[in-house]
Amino acid sequence: MAGSSFGNLFRITTWGESHGKGIGVVVDGCPAGLSLCEEDIQKFLDRRKPGQSKFTTQRRESDTVEILSGVFEGKTTGTPISMMVWNKDQHSADYSEIASYYRPGHADFCFDEKYGFRDYRGGGRSSGRETIGRVAGGAIAIKILEQMDISILAYSQAIGPVSIDPARFDPAEISKNKLYMPDATAAAKASAYLEKCLQEQNSSGGIIECQIFGLPVGLGDPVFEKLDANLAKAILSIGAVKGFEIGAGFGVATATGLTNNDAFCMENGHISKRTNYSGGTLGGMSDGSLLFFRAAVKPTPSIAATQQTVNKDGKEIEISIKGRHDPIIVPRAVVVVEAMTAITILDALLSNMTARLDRIIDFYQS
Amino acid sequence: MAGSSFGNLFRITTWGESHGKGIGVVVDGCPAGLSLCEEDIQKFLDRRKPGQSKFTTQRRESDTVEILSGVFEGKTTGTPISMMVWNKDQHSADYSEIASYYRPGHADFCFDEKYGFRDYRGGGRSSGRETIGRVAGGAIAIKILEQMDISILAYSQAIGPVSIDPARFDPAEISKNKLYMPDATAAAKASAYLEKCLQEQNSSGGIIECQIFGLPVGLGDPVFEKLDANLAKAILSIGAVKGFEIGAGFGVATATGLTNNDAFCMENGHISKRTNYSGGTLGGMSDGSLLFFRAAVKPTPSIAATQQTVNKDGKEIEISIKGRHDPIIVPRAVVVVEAMTAITILDALLSNMTARLDRIIDFYQS
Amino acid sequence: MAGSSFGNLFRITTWGESHGKGIGVVVDGCPAGLSLCEEDIQKFLDRRKPGQSKFTTQRRESDTVEILSGVFEGKTTGTPISMMVWNKDQHSADYSEIASYYRPGHADFCFDEKYGFRDYRGGGRSSGRETIGRVAGGAIAIKILEQMDISILAYSQAIGPVSIDPARFDPAEISKNKLYMPDATAAAKASAYLEKCLQEQNSSGGIIECQIFGLPVGLGDPVFEKLDANLAKAILSIGAVKGFEIGAGFGVATATGLTNNDAFCMENGHISKRTNYSGGTLGGMSDGSLLFFRAAVKPTPSIAATQQTVNKDGKEIEISIKGRHDPIIVPRAVVVVEAMTAITILDALLSNMTARLDRIIDFYQS
Amino acid sequence: MAGSSFGNLFRITTWGESHGKGIGVVVDGCPAGLSLCEEDIQKFLDRRKPGQSKFTTQRRESDTVEILSGVFEGKTTGTPISMMVWNKDQHSADYSEIASYYRPGHADFCFDEKYGFRDYRGGGRSSGRETIGRVAGGAIAIKILEQMDISILAYSQAIGPVSIDPARFDPAEISKNKLYMPDATAAAKASAYLEKCLQEQNSSGGIIECQIFGLPVGLGDPVFEKLDANLAKAILSIGAVKGFEIGAGFGVATATGLTNNDAFCMENGHISKRTNYSGGTLGGMSDGSLLFFRAAVKPTPSIAATQQTVNKDGKEIEISIKGRHDPIIVPRAVVVVEAMTAITILDALLSNMTARLDRIIDFYQS
Repeated sequence: MAGSSFGNLFRITTWGESHGKGIGVVVDGCPAGLSLCEEDIQKFLDRRKPGQSKFTTQRRESDTVEILSGVFEGKTTGTPISMMVWNKDQHSADYSEIASYYRPGHADFCFDEKYGFRDYRGGGRSSGRETIGRVAGGAIAIKILEQMDISILAYSQAIGPVSIDPARFDPAEISKNKLYMPDATAAAKASAYLEKCLQEQNSSGGIIECQIFGLPVGLGDPVFEKLDANLAKAILSIGAVKGFEIGAGFGVATATGLTNNDAFCMENGHISKRTNYSGGTLGGMSDGSLLFFRAAVKPTPSIAATQQTVNKDGKEIEISIKGRHDPIIVPRAVVVVEAMTAITILDALLSNMTARLDRIIDFYQS
Repeated sequence: MAGSSFGNLFRITTWGESHGKGIGVVVDGCPAGLSLCEEDIQKFLDRRKPGQSKFTTQRRESDTVEILSGVFEGKTTGTPISMMVWNKDQHSADYSEIASYYRPGHADFCFDEKYGFRDYRGGGRSSGRETIGRVAGGAIAIKILEQMDISILAYSQAIGPVSIDPARFDPAEISKNKLYMPDATAAAKASAYLEKCLQEQNSSGGIIECQIFGLPVGLGDPVFEKLDANLAKAILSIGAVKGFEIGAGFGVATATGLTNNDAFCMENGHISKRTNYSGGTLGGMSDGSLLFFRAAVKPTPSIAATQQTVNKDGKEIEISIKGRHDPIIVPRAVVVVEAMTAITILDALLSNMTARLDRIIDFYQS
Repeated sequence: MAGSSFGNLFRITTWGESHGKGIGVVVDGCPAGLSLCEEDIQKFLDRRKPGQSKFTTQRRESDTVEILSGVFEGKTTGTPISMMVWNKDQHSADYSEIASYYRPGHADFCFDEKYGFRDYRGGGRSSGRETIGRVAGGAIAIKILEQMDISILAYSQAIGPVSIDPARFDPAEISKNKLYMPDATAAAKASAYLEKCLQEQNSSGGIIECQIFGLPVGLGDPVFEKLDANLAKAILSIGAVKGFEIGAGFGVATATGLTNNDAFCMENGHISKRTNYSGGTLGGMSDGSLLFFRAAVKPTPSIAATQQTVNKDGKEIEISIKGRHDPIIVPRAVVVVEAMTAITILDALLSNMTARLDRIIDFYQS
Repeated sequence: MAGSSFGNLFRITTWGESHGKGIGVVVDGCPAGLSLCEEDIQKFLDRRKPGQSKFTTQRRESDTVEILSGVFEGKTTGTPISMMVWNKDQHSADYSEIASYYRPGHADFCFDEKYGFRDYRGGGRSSGRETIGRVAGGAIAIKILEQMDISILAYSQAIGPVSIDPARFDPAEISKNKLYMPDATAAAKASAYLEKCLQEQNSSGGIIECQIFGLPVGLGDPVFEKLDANLAKAILSIGAVKGFEIGAGFGVATATGLTNNDAFCMENGHISKRTNYSGGTLGGMSDGSLLFFRAAVKPTPSIAATQQTVNKDGKEIEISIKGRHDPIIVPRAVVVVEAMTAITILDALLSNMTARLDRIIDFYQS
């Protein structure tokens, strides 16, 4: 199936494997008139590129983006924007071993069964490098949302057993530590925890939290195209994400109507809510409050410690995965969460323009 | 936007409001040749209809389904299957009060802002009755999956603070208690808890768990159409669901690669996994293990206890919602989770048929 | 495949067979706030219903539409509008003969091969009655377009060898004769021709022409979603249509650039065109001129004259199709062409709202 | 809107402008296991590249395709195949003049109105170079269809007033003359006619015909996804195409049921048709006969002769378009028609796999 596109009116189509010639994305449906240059994209890609710290793979990739179409005289034209990054570090390794067995926690086995064989070089299409296209596409969505005073902030909420302390929450801290935690103390603890993981040839999971500010009321549709449902798909489509919750999330299970309902109130002449257990959506539509959700990210499956598995000949074997791998996926996935969120929100914003006949008539008469 | 359809090759389109003439669904893309009669659908609808116990609304609806098209001489023809249920209990109440304010935890406010006004009778399109179309469509998907030896089992995993004890897990128990819990002891405790909620004019949240048996390897696509991502969307599209997790779910945050990776092994000559923390998918594709996930369901927002809110004139008021409402959504949503899961799985199963050229050629040559 | 939906933002999903319980449509994505009642729909259905003249089948159907959802207090709510017509004349005939062979010019054979069997009662899903859903959905689109000063006019341009004379073109005449021809003289001749067809147990083809007034510039997209491409699909999706041409159409084959290019000029301070060989689109986008196209409609395949065919046992036989059938499809298809055109235009109008960033920002700031 | 994708299960997404960095396509949903190399694509691109004869533009482009992803060890992997061609001849010209006015027969005016401005270099996204992506994607579809014994043959049926003589039809001739006419005599006449057009600084229209051999019965769906409707959209989405007809096409208007119905008959033990006025589809589904259709292509709008138009300041002016342009679009569009046809057919072939439950069960059990 054609499963490499995301979004309806604003749509990205990604392509590329970790050890192919490159990785890219076509952004279709981008409105005309947005100022756009490669630097707008690059600054987001730089946040996910490897080699930023000891906790990220040492693969050497500059991941320099090139805009191939859709921009003329510095502005988007309304036609598809094709962007790509050439893979530099694509030839070196010997993959004969990895080709011969199924790595635990990876999709190798599923690829072989589904497609009959697989591109076994570094994860192929399931590599983390696949997210380059998402981030490049998301960078455009974020730039558009900014012009509508909508902003997105994601960060590491927990790394292994170390969670941030809400009392110490400081957004300015996020970009100061390599773990993208908005709490310097937690970041230090998490760093120590990851050192230990590395020494033990092990890896760690964590949680990413994302906040969206400035949403108008009414984004999302009441039934299948609920805003939260589309966000859930967007976030679960990121490799290694195993859970999604919005607002009080799984906490609602033990809540009651009295504790979980957010009372409406008046605030500066506008309707607002006293609390925000809903996390910013009601009935699948944005309710004008801060929208926030969390994503659970599993530990990097590629670890150097010895593991048991099966080879292609159906023999049980022991393996130890070579090469340096990130001991944690969370920090580099933060910008991917922002990107997928932005695409989802922008798409909802565009489709919402057709909800009311009076506004449509106004649009065409003005 | 056209947001009332779900699925690609097997697609349902639902319609109807709680107090309109009826509720219905068009199932498009159903393969030809399936034996189908109204009883096949009715038995699923009966599991979600009101009035089954003291914990469900006393609204009197028989919810009798009628198949209007797509079946000829007892078999599906490959053309769209239209099904509907007439609303019986649609005229009685006086809605002038509910029309005048915004119920906490409901979408009233969002509807007014998005569409300019709303159908305020009993929740309109956001009523729980909207799920009738999902369940009717899902009943067809379930019947098809059964013929491929794929089965789906959902149940209440937790109601408020009462969770099932895995040691007492008994699938036969699910249909014996009104709470759809696979643990009689937990069901009794949960029942007592709900009694208390009722007395306090309050309501409870809970968790639904779902298991899918018999999936072939390879359903779902590696990037945006991951099987788990589509399940997340399917489940979050059900009203009141605030979280989704698959396999170890949010537990992966504190796990490590060594504890979370599932070792592959050989079992009766087939490749299998020693553990199943992944919950049945790897890289977005089914991995041949049991697929299981959990959904967090918020407490019924309609409660009789006094609540604060705002009316349409922007005045802060106190309200008490009249009428009998379910003190818990979970039990009646169990069959809705099964339905949405079945539709998602079937759609993935159909699209997976085109993954390999050799199998396509075989298909047309045989 | 799910092939019963048309449109993206404004989408219809039709269902029903000629001899099933009824025929219906779900209109999804209709903007909120449109005044709508059953009479708005009925007046269009009345134009396609049988029994209007001696040239239409004598099947007795009142085809009374019922709106089942999506309208509250006389206005569309933004939720799906379900409409249906009950089949009255559904039980009488004996279909054992028609079930046993393949009618020339009909899809009987294709249904059997594709689906394994077929609903042989009166054409099943391929009956002309299938267009009821299209016309009901189109009636809503037409009503919306009217409010934006866009109108659609279709008529019979030719019936068999009788074409209208442009010099006698009179739109007021269209509804005066049963053939929907804008030329009384041609209508009279065509009527005589059809009488002869009837006597000879034969049928006639013809051409429908359609004009769209008041389109803004820029509807449609430059590549695959060209406005003319979507119109072509819309029109060719109507049973019996075998050709589509826009503007000069097939006449361009013998034209030259000098004769076929439309010179731009100024007219009352606006940019206009001196001629309109393009038929109202350039590069797939509406150019602000009258949009017009023609559709070729084949003769009714059901004729009483003796024909050769094959039965299900693979034996060559001679048949004579019983019952009264329309000797011409064209007049009743005129309103279907209008309906499909309106849906296509409205969908393009909605999606065009997202073309420019400045207009999107304005939309959300006002 | 996102309007640069075509196809559902097998989907192409194209990008690029005539004078941007390059032109490309992402092919998503290609089944795994197809042997594929750049030469498979290049041979089709060579048929549309410029500079082949005096009747094609002298722009110097080698149009060498590069496969960037989706192929591993010579076989498609099931992941998206990204292909691109770098533009070589992209910088030379001075476009200040063309930027200042609206060329008759071109989309310049529509672009400015829809998007607020345009990429005025050589037609931008509406350039004929846009078809490179279609042809590259179509080359893959054609290779797959070949393995299923389905072949596609398109050719110039008419150039200006010169049509081929069916009695002289010779497929081997198509690749022998630069006009892709299957009739050497007609090709010579057409060549002389085009010489005259060139001398007169004028251009010519024409007709492309396309035949598809080897289709199984049942491709396409009965209502909106009719095979002929999708072909019509595919073909009308090619720039300059103004008409589409299948089988007898517009000829059906003057036909009768008796002359237009194709009698079924037995042929070598299979059901066949004595004639083929339907052109290979009945009720929107392939009927097992040769499928054939025609497309009307307008004369190249860029001509050197003096034309009247309007500039951006709203002043009426006279222009003469500089540079060498093809005096006819038809020959180079032949391969584009083949490509779009192949994509449409393949997509229908894949979706048809889900039509029957028994075959789905067989598929998964074998």
